[in-house]
Amino acid sequence: MRAASRSYGVFVGEGALEELLPGLLADREPGQVAVVSHPLILSLHGELLDGVLREAGHEGWKSGCFLFPHGEGSKNISTLNALYAFLLEQGMTREGVILAFGGGVVGDLAGFAAATFMRGVDFIQIPTTLMAMVDSSVGGKVGVDMPGAKNAVGAFHQPLAVLSDPGLLSTLPRRELLGGLAEVLKYGFLYDPDILALRGGAEGWLRLTEWARSEIIASCARLKAAVVERDERDVSGERAMLNYGHTFGHALEAATGYARLRHGEAVAAGMIMAARAAELSGIARMPLLDTHRELLTPLLEECPPLDGVAAEDVVGAMGADKKRGRLMRFVLLEAPQRPVLVEGLPPEVVERTVADTLLELGRR
Amino acid sequence: MRAASRSYGVFVGEGALEELLPGLLADREPGQVAVVSHPLILSLHGELLDGVLREAGHEGWKSGCFLFPHGEGSKNISTLNALYAFLLEQGMTREGVILAFGGGVVGDLAGFAAATFMRGVDFIQIPTTLMAMVDSSVGGKVGVDMPGAKNAVGAFHQPLAVLSDPGLLSTLPRRELLGGLAEVLKYGFLYDPDILALRGGAEGWLRLTEWARSEIIASCARLKAAVVERDERDVSGERAMLNYGHTFGHALEAATGYARLRHGEAVAAGMIMAARAAELSGIARMPLLDTHRELLTPLLEECPPLDGVAAEDVVGAMGADKKRGRLMRFVLLEAPQRPVLVEGLPPEVVERTVADTLLELGRR
Repeated sequence: MRAASRSYGVFVGEGALEELLPGLLADREPGQVAVVSHPLILSLHGELLDGVLREAGHEGWKSGCFLFPHGEGSKNISTLNALYAFLLEQGMTREGVILAFGGGVVGDLAGFAAATFMRGVDFIQIPTTLMAMVDSSVGGKVGVDMPGAKNAVGAFHQPLAVLSDPGLLSTLPRRELLGGLAEVLKYGFLYDPDILALRGGAEGWLRLTEWARSEIIASCARLKAAVVERDERDVSGERAMLNYGHTFGHALEAATGYARLRHGEAVAAGMIMAARAAELSGIARMPLLDTHRELLTPLLEECPPLDGVAAEDVVGAMGADKKRGRLMRFVLLEAPQRPVLVEGLPPEVVERTVADTLLELGRR
Repeated sequence: MRAASRSYGVFVGEGALEELLPGLLADREPGQVAVVSHPLILSLHGELLDGVLREAGHEGWKSGCFLFPHGEGSKNISTLNALYAFLLEQGMTREGVILAFGGGVVGDLAGFAAATFMRGVDFIQIPTTLMAMVDSSVGGKVGVDMPGAKNAVGAFHQPLAVLSDPGLLSTLPRRELLGGLAEVLKYGFLYDPDILALRGGAEGWLRLTEWARSEIIASCARLKAAVVERDERDVSGERAMLNYGHTFGHALEAATGYARLRHGEAVAAGMIMAARAAELSGIARMPLLDTHRELLTPLLEECPPLDGVAAEDVVGAMGADKKRGRLMRFVLLEAPQRPVLVEGLPPEVVERTVADTLLELGRR
């Protein structure tokens, strides 16, 4: 893709690492390559990476490997500080490159370190989750959380390349897969009817051939890359469309203390809410809710029922944004593949949308 | 100035704040303006700022004022973290603006927070030291230190504007003034013979009219802005020229534990070393050392004698860079206003340069 600030490639396919990583590292001195990952990923896929890096002449890569505990809770300034200290200790210079080997948290943290270490070094995204392959690894948004404020500190820093090998997904826990599928379907609702043929939740995905899975991942990444190319810094509103389901989803995550739902599950529920809000407000010109329900409800199979969540807490969590001086912005569909940006919705529509959807999801 | 990533103005003159700040803040909501400064600056010049901000409709600015202890020791991730938390607490959004009111440390820290808070908010530089007015506030290099590594974490983030009021310099401690004059003379040696008419150290400066001082500051800022416009990210080597005296100077600072010399003093001594190295290596096509001595030695009047510093420690501190895989880079003069970038110098030239200069500066 070509973003305003840097052009880079997104490569999806079995063997993407073996084929492309050695070339990308060809001119790097051994001490100038750092891997950022976490212990579980390394125990599952470290051997693959080891083979590729050895071939590329970086036998000693393990001493340049920074591991941190899995999960959003680690995506903070304290882990970042430890990573900076590690890179200094390794003697990394401006000619260094950071490999982000993991899911969205690894990519966000390693990418932000790359954006700011020595005022910016190269980095390569090697996503190991479906969510990271189709969404977070593409587009250059990197950053860390502050207490109570996700991604409050960050930058736009485009990776040198994104290398996605769908083979790495074979070890993905089912709930991570389900969350990733929510982002996949988001691209279907927003842009590509073909993706909406992906029915039946996790089973539907697992029934596909390896090749079909690669194609879907590549489609999503291409769609995102095209949007980012035109609106890298979220200025025209086009990039904001990628937040379909996210205004409701973020509020749901916040109202449940970021503990009950995975991000992808919240986005799935958030898209069901967005479909209902589009119907209730009359913005939808055709029925949307049934398809959303059919495709997205299976993705919530592992998440605890939501009927215990208070609708007013969710609506209140949206209000936190409102206090910051802006109207709530919603991405809604007039029809599948026809997204519009709506500034402000009648409060009664928002309230009823949230309450009805929570009730419905509780009855599953 | 127009840098690749953003164009902005550098304004120098008595009354720059009163005249320009209200206009720059015209559309900002009260909660969206944060001042970053330190207690001493605020006790000296807070009244001026108070008047301007009140006029601009920001009566409550003091509650949005983040103060931290003076000095390079505060320019770290822990202060930065506190600043992020403060901005969140204030409810600052992407529409916010940060005013950096102080010297280089304030500008670097506040600028880096602005570069990264919510992936980037606006900031305005209001430098209060000569060094910051002529050098650090212009050009968009912002960042914080890591233990043992100055500016190891940073970004390029151009301010909306730089507002320099030379009237603020009336309270500047003499040693800060001397350090600033070193950077002023750097622009003379590199680009502008008129600046080299500024003789006699601090007394020479204080003898000038207010108007002449403004002109000199504006010249330096303009010269730097022109360089940054052409080479914002230090790619072509042109911006690297601004490091005249800095390779030796940084090593001198490191070898003396960043405690004995101010940065400007180290740069003054570093430029004397650069002149000597240019003569010793035959790169200089005319005598340089005498003029350098005459103009720069008076700037070291308040700094402890340097004859106790071991030359090998200074040369060793340069080696720290060498280990990082690059040849030492020196900016040397063929003649005044004819700088060249030299990759590598014979070690015996570097050693003799350092040893002889330290001895000479010790004999003052």
